[in-house]
Amino acid sequence: MAVRLLNMSRFARLSRPLLRTTRQYSGAAASVDGSYTGPDMKTTVPGPKSKELFGDLMKIQQAGGVQYFVDYNKSQGNYLVDADGNVLLDLFGQVGSIPLGYNHPAIKERITSQGIDTLVNRPALGCFPPTDYAQTLQDALLSVAPKGMSEVMTLMCGSCANENAFKASFISFMDRQRGGPVNPSAEEYASALYNKGPGCPKLSVLSFKGAFHGRLLATLSCTHSKVIHKLDIPALDWPCAPFPQLKYPLDQFVRENQQEEKKCLEEVEDNFSTSQKNGVPIATAIIEPIQAEGGDKHASPEFFEGLQTICKKYGASFMVDEVQTGCGGTGYMWAHEAWDLPEPADFVTFAKKMQIGGFYYTSERRTNEAFRIFNTYVGDHMRTVVLGAIVNEMTKRQLLGQVKETGEVLLTGLQKLETTI
Amino acid sequence: MAVRLLNMSRFARLSRPLLRTTRQYSGAAASVDGSYTGPDMKTTVPGPKSKELFGDLMKIQQAGGVQYFVDYNKSQGNYLVDADGNVLLDLFGQVGSIPLGYNHPAIKERITSQGIDTLVNRPALGCFPPTDYAQTLQDALLSVAPKGMSEVMTLMCGSCANENAFKASFISFMDRQRGGPVNPSAEEYASALYNKGPGCPKLSVLSFKGAFHGRLLATLSCTHSKVIHKLDIPALDWPCAPFPQLKYPLDQFVRENQQEEKKCLEEVEDNFSTSQKNGVPIATAIIEPIQAEGGDKHASPEFFEGLQTICKKYGASFMVDEVQTGCGGTGYMWAHEAWDLPEPADFVTFAKKMQIGGFYYTSERRTNEAFRIFNTYVGDHMRTVVLGAIVNEMTKRQLLGQVKETGEVLLTGLQKLETTI
Repeated sequence: MAVRLLNMSRFARLSRPLLRTTRQYSGAAASVDGSYTGPDMKTTVPGPKSKELFGDLMKIQQAGGVQYFVDYNKSQGNYLVDADGNVLLDLFGQVGSIPLGYNHPAIKERITSQGIDTLVNRPALGCFPPTDYAQTLQDALLSVAPKGMSEVMTLMCGSCANENAFKASFISFMDRQRGGPVNPSAEEYASALYNKGPGCPKLSVLSFKGAFHGRLLATLSCTHSKVIHKLDIPALDWPCAPFPQLKYPLDQFVRENQQEEKKCLEEVEDNFSTSQKNGVPIATAIIEPIQAEGGDKHASPEFFEGLQTICKKYGASFMVDEVQTGCGGTGYMWAHEAWDLPEPADFVTFAKKMQIGGFYYTSERRTNEAFRIFNTYVGDHMRTVVLGAIVNEMTKRQLLGQVKETGEVLLTGLQKLETTI
Repeated sequence: MAVRLLNMSRFARLSRPLLRTTRQYSGAAASVDGSYTGPDMKTTVPGPKSKELFGDLMKIQQAGGVQYFVDYNKSQGNYLVDADGNVLLDLFGQVGSIPLGYNHPAIKERITSQGIDTLVNRPALGCFPPTDYAQTLQDALLSVAPKGMSEVMTLMCGSCANENAFKASFISFMDRQRGGPVNPSAEEYASALYNKGPGCPKLSVLSFKGAFHGRLLATLSCTHSKVIHKLDIPALDWPCAPFPQLKYPLDQFVRENQQEEKKCLEEVEDNFSTSQKNGVPIATAIIEPIQAEGGDKHASPEFFEGLQTICKKYGASFMVDEVQTGCGGTGYMWAHEAWDLPEPADFVTFAKKMQIGGFYYTSERRTNEAFRIFNTYVGDHMRTVVLGAIVNEMTKRQLLGQVKETGEVLLTGLQKLETTI
């Protein structure tokens, strides 16, 4: 049996005017200060200008993922303005990369005051950082670090963040095996250059069914959400445990859900002991606080604490992937703060709304040697400057509290709706 | 035997005033228009201000790779100004990421004219590109594309570029095996989610001894230059062929070098046939035009053409890693243009001086389906805008010609020096 995969672009699918009903929202004007008071649709989406630009782009790359083209200059707050002048209420926020809405004045002010030197010049941040580097990392990242984490490494995107955190977890795992900083044997030294053991050891990362951790080769091996991401790409044969499939409403399925989580943790422990027996120990488990691509799947704080305990028992790292959940969307800066763990995670990774990729880590997980977690750019200082403005605004306006309040209103409303249908 | 690895930072190593002789260059002043006329050393390097900033940074990350801190605002042309006001003649260019010198006015002008909308807002370029997107890719990247290559994909950094090009090569390899666009069997479909074959096939990438292709897990498996990069990181068991070790002066070792290259190509072909026999066919060979980290190793155009021929024979892609060599440093925009290949490479990857990572590819290597070579950010439009200014300046001022002229003066001088010693 052949299975058909999505290969039509939004442009092909939307060539019929599916969005003709959007006309009903038309007529909302921009307010005096330039912000929009509502959606304002002038064409179907994608409109003629977007279609023309799409034609140009398709000539030079596979651009089938493009939905429409955007006028970022005219977009404002929650409203995105497309190439055809349509004003759309944006609930998607650039795949979750816009935490404060479009063209926030605080971001513009920060760029003006801090300057664009590191945009004009491309620094190798790991060798020649700008003078304001440590202070910028402090303001943008450490001021909102998860409890117990005092160190941070910036990288380029979410996959890059996760994959470098894997590397750091492998290095620290081997350090712990050796009982100290790296002092490799001649055999380790000679074998590593050509991908052989013992220099390149057999180690694995445990991930969960339905997980999404990125699209580079190692992170893709930990991603189990959609076939099209993985098909035809060779993978590392790393273990995969079930993520709890809870039943709702939670208060009606307390016992069933406890059993489900217990069963999942038993499978996690099975994976750890089997991997160890097979000579490919698990160096780290990676998990999302909420599976997003995997279908909005949640688990209890007890489940995550149980996972942390098993990691500790086997000398592995506990890594929380907050690429989607980080930066305030849950009412906590980091979704995993809601679990109130007895001790911090070993690694917390981020990207998307944080403007750059990277990871927090505990001091125990710092590599002893320089240049082991490294590349030429090591992140993008201009993006960290932007993040500094975002974090400052979140703190000053107590936005996490607002997210919590709004979330409660929405949840209560949805629960009420549920009982009235 | 234990082997000692570099684990001291430059700060520890340079705590003695090794650079005290730099005083002899002191006294060169800035010219009237703000550019520098020579180095001007005020302290040893790193100076007291750099040391203080280093102390701050070391508290929040493993910063042992840092050499000194930089005042990017004051740096100009070939002169880098550090945190202590030392003016240094910069021959390192941020690990090769500064093609036109510091604070080039053309870059500033371009940023002013094109605007910073995509810095203030972080677009998901693969879904919602800005209206000037195709035009910017055209100006910055396709106007200088290697001959025969009409498509380009932007990504984040060099490793990310290579690893995504690997993915594109795997997808196109499997498409060719199937004899058409993806139409997976139910078995392929079901197995891919959990890293199993046939959905996740056994495929490999051929790299060369001494190569450096990056530090993510798959690219690190193709990197064979320094042990410290690879130690303790699990690797894919992919094949590795010898890179020619030529003898100099070339005109005195013509026969020996021809034999050396022939021998290397025979080993390449052995690798292809063995990998095929073992059921892990090579989907792509990746090679640098000049091995840099590997020790300034060159090979003849005939060698590279021979490699391309073998790739074609086995239905594999021929991938040229121009992360270090691209963007004009050899007097060609792309170093491999000097080989005058009978047909284009299948993939050419770039980063560093190009400001962003990415790869060119031939139309035959385009994936039929959207979202297969994809991530949230898909590059950084602001960096592509900067690249547009750089490329325009290179063309307008015929800088490639200048590089060739200067290179000839230097080479002739060095050859003369060689015979006079």
